Amino acid sequence: MDHTLLTQHCSREVRIGREVFGGGEVGWIAGPCAAESYEQMRDAAAALKACGIAVMRGGLYKPRTSPHSFQGLQAGGVDIIRRIKAEFGLAYVSEVVDGASLELLLPYLDAVQVGSRNCMNYALLKLVGRAGKPVILKRGFAMTVDEWLCAAEYLALAGARDIVLCERGIRTVTEVTRFTLDLGALAWLKSQGVLPVIADPSHATGDSSLVVPLARAALAAGADGLMLEVAPCPEQAQCDARQQLSFDQLRALRGTS
Amino acid sequence: MDHTLLTQHCSREVRIGREVFGGGEVGWIAGPCAAESYEQMRDAAAALKACGIAVMRGGLYKPRTSPHSFQGLQAGGVDIIRRIKAEFGLAYVSEVVDGASLELLLPYLDAVQVGSRNCMNYALLKLVGRAGKPVILKRGFAMTVDEWLCAAEYLALAGARDIVLCERGIRTVTEVTRFTLDLGALAWLKSQGVLPVIADPSHATGDSSLVVPLARAALAAGADGLMLEVAPCPEQAQCDARQQLSFDQLRALRGTS
Amino acid sequence: MDHTLLTQHCSREVRIGREVFGGGEVGWIAGPCAAESYEQMRDAAAALKACGIAVMRGGLYKPRTSPHSFQGLQAGGVDIIRRIKAEFGLAYVSEVVDGASLELLLPYLDAVQVGSRNCMNYALLKLVGRAGKPVILKRGFAMTVDEWLCAAEYLALAGARDIVLCERGIRTVTEVTRFTLDLGALAWLKSQGVLPVIADPSHATGDSSLVVPLARAALAAGADGLMLEVAPCPEQAQCDARQQLSFDQLRALRGTS
Amino acid sequence: MDHTLLTQHCSREVRIGREVFGGGEVGWIAGPCAAESYEQMRDAAAALKACGIAVMRGGLYKPRTSPHSFQGLQAGGVDIIRRIKAEFGLAYVSEVVDGASLELLLPYLDAVQVGSRNCMNYALLKLVGRAGKPVILKRGFAMTVDEWLCAAEYLALAGARDIVLCERGIRTVTEVTRFTLDLGALAWLKSQGVLPVIADPSHATGDSSLVVPLARAALAAGADGLMLEVAPCPEQAQCDARQQLSFDQLRALRGTS
Repeated sequence: MDHTLLTQHCSREVRIGREVFGGGEVGWIAGPCAAESYEQMRDAAAALKACGIAVMRGGLYKPRTSPHSFQGLQAGGVDIIRRIKAEFGLAYVSEVVDGASLELLLPYLDAVQVGSRNCMNYALLKLVGRAGKPVILKRGFAMTVDEWLCAAEYLALAGARDIVLCERGIRTVTEVTRFTLDLGALAWLKSQGVLPVIADPSHATGDSSLVVPLARAALAAGADGLMLEVAPCPEQAQCDARQQLSFDQLRALRGTS
Repeated sequence: MDHTLLTQHCSREVRIGREVFGGGEVGWIAGPCAAESYEQMRDAAAALKACGIAVMRGGLYKPRTSPHSFQGLQAGGVDIIRRIKAEFGLAYVSEVVDGASLELLLPYLDAVQVGSRNCMNYALLKLVGRAGKPVILKRGFAMTVDEWLCAAEYLALAGARDIVLCERGIRTVTEVTRFTLDLGALAWLKSQGVLPVIADPSHATGDSSLVVPLARAALAAGADGLMLEVAPCPEQAQCDARQQLSFDQLRALRGTS
Repeated sequence: MDHTLLTQHCSREVRIGREVFGGGEVGWIAGPCAAESYEQMRDAAAALKACGIAVMRGGLYKPRTSPHSFQGLQAGGVDIIRRIKAEFGLAYVSEVVDGASLELLLPYLDAVQVGSRNCMNYALLKLVGRAGKPVILKRGFAMTVDEWLCAAEYLALAGARDIVLCERGIRTVTEVTRFTLDLGALAWLKSQGVLPVIADPSHATGDSSLVVPLARAALAAGADGLMLEVAPCPEQAQCDARQQLSFDQLRALRGTS
Repeated sequence: MDHTLLTQHCSREVRIGREVFGGGEVGWIAGPCAAESYEQMRDAAAALKACGIAVMRGGLYKPRTSPHSFQGLQAGGVDIIRRIKAEFGLAYVSEVVDGASLELLLPYLDAVQVGSRNCMNYALLKLVGRAGKPVILKRGFAMTVDEWLCAAEYLALAGARDIVLCERGIRTVTEVTRFTLDLGALAWLKSQGVLPVIADPSHATGDSSLVVPLARAALAAGADGLMLEVAPCPEQAQCDARQQLSFDQLRALRGTS
């Protein structure tokens, strides 16, 4: 389909805080799946700083499959993000799920994330595209690459110029990982040279022991960056505990990539 | 996962206008993919009345894969719906995509539809669940049945009591139809007896010549109703032209099901 | 791809014993998943006769996922088949898995079945195509319709003229059934009118309570016949116990289809 | 399921010619998709030697989707293989498709390949398992990892001790590559430590420009080796022309991996 705006107007190199995506170096985004407390985010922020990673994640709005699962701190967590940003000078990326969450988080966001469950929520894409911030657009569970680029085109049509695609795994027959990280699609997108593309091996595998090999594989396939879940005490996390790296695992990965 | 609210509080029989879903008879919903003009909707409404079908569809907000495709008449079409309802006394079902479209359409809606692309847009599900109207919840392209029931549980948690599931096909290896209508999932849901389930063979096949056999198959598998695309001049439709039945095809199907 | 031979030389109506597939009536094939004993096959044969079903199944060579599972009686079961055929006058269909099993079973086969796991085993298709018997060709777990027709074209190129396609479910995201019966593909194939197509709802669902609604759905979608698993004591079967109908269920289905 | 024999009796390190798979170094297998002529195989063999690659591929039996496509030189190509092996001292790996092809090729094979289309052809697995040679077992288009290990268990039960799994891509929603190389499954298998696992990025992508990044990704994910298609004149190949590397591309990949 028609991806003209992406091709003509969007940046091939996107800066979020001091990390650059698409410029030849690897851009890094890391942090807990969900922000759960000041202490948790503080410890994660300190670990990121020590590693030299400049962009933090840690969601406040968590679209969970069950409405009975923890949905994120939401508005109640904004003050934590404000304090962490002030204390550590990190850039912050977080998922938004509607106009209200976008408005509330926007002052603290250095990039806006649209998650897999909302990648075809075109009303949200129009809002996010108008927000004037870089956007990280995750791929849907069963989205073709063309549909993904069309979703990015919605962002571009609404005004976004700095769009980073994030491959986070698709649903397949494979039963030993939660999703299948599609590095062929990533390599193909890189060969087209339209938008920067990063990989999220944490959601793709759902298993921290597989995150490191898949992160390395993504970089070898040409990924412009990584989005990683890392937590001070992964096993205590309220959300996606099994897939979060420890600080030691993150350091080891940084040291060798 | 936990679907307690569906089981404890939701209706097994849902009434939309004079059609009943889940009460043993087949409930029918039909109409154009998108409302495009007063004349088109009037002709469709007359055909529905002549067939004895009491609920009309014809979307004003169309979530299209490409932002460059026709997106529906949106607010500009509300007056058409108001007139058609007044003139023909039909109930009306339409997809909403955000809070604004819900608010605008709500006075004219007898049931609110959540589409496949928004079936995991939990912010929208919360709004729709509070609206006090029956809800038709389509299945996502790659949603498990458990995820679908969890999405319905979001509606129930927000207050919805009248929820109808709509099987509209999932993405598979098959290349001769757009999607694969999953009548096994439909039959399984019927065997659980939690919510009424209808089928949309128009989107599932993308081909009007296959809609009739699949509609019959859905009813034979136990579907509580059908949602069908039908248009005065299918070949001129701005959206999904190939999958819309002619009035003659609809009449033939009604006569034999 | 090229399916010329199917189109030019194959029968649109295939006779196996006294059942006809593709002639407007429904052809029936039923019996145990695997032949396990003379008594079991005798009881099944008597039930089939009582129902008026003229073709029996009951495999001797069972391609099981694990090599540690029961693999069928193999050569040791041939005498059972010989006796049952002589006593009840039923036609017999069974899967073959290589040249040796084909040669051994051929004298007793009224149609040769190629199973899903061997549907791209072209060496086997060539042998089966030369055998001079009707062939039932099951669809593979993840086969496109074009690939399926190409597999049938292998049979035709080797000499087969009487080929019946059997839709038995494909692998999808759905978790409440073993496979997803693809009635859209079946309806599409019927619309092309090349070969007779039957459905196997037993393997598709893996659950006897869903076999009856899916069997009815397949017929409503235009299936030329059904292949059903039925057993005297389904719960004691060594293979696929949960999906086999009881005789009562089979009678009920016959009476209403 | 039960994979006891793999775990207890199979080698974690498999030697084919002078390449070792599972010993920490990368094992390499390369060559044309299909052997087509003495000259083609001679040029490929010379290029492999120059690169230091010790195992050659180049199939004589090609299971093609259409029976009207080139099926390989079959028995007519055996003499080419004999000459090439004698002249260049390379090991040779080739797919077999039945007992006859196995018997014919066995004297020239250093490892027997079972292809994706035959990965659930258990009759063939039993024959191959008895042949006394290392086996390369490709994954099926829609095979779970458990089913793959069960297929390997068939080989082990028949006597095979040296089994190498080959991940070659699975069928998914992705449309920009032929298949999706599943490096998550590969990394998971490596974490279990049962059998060596290699990757075939040529079949996975179907596009030679994507083979190099995916080959590097596979090694980064922990692959024990690579199977690559390479041809003197890729564009003239009768089979899978688009996915074969040129010698220059192969040399570049060798130099940097």
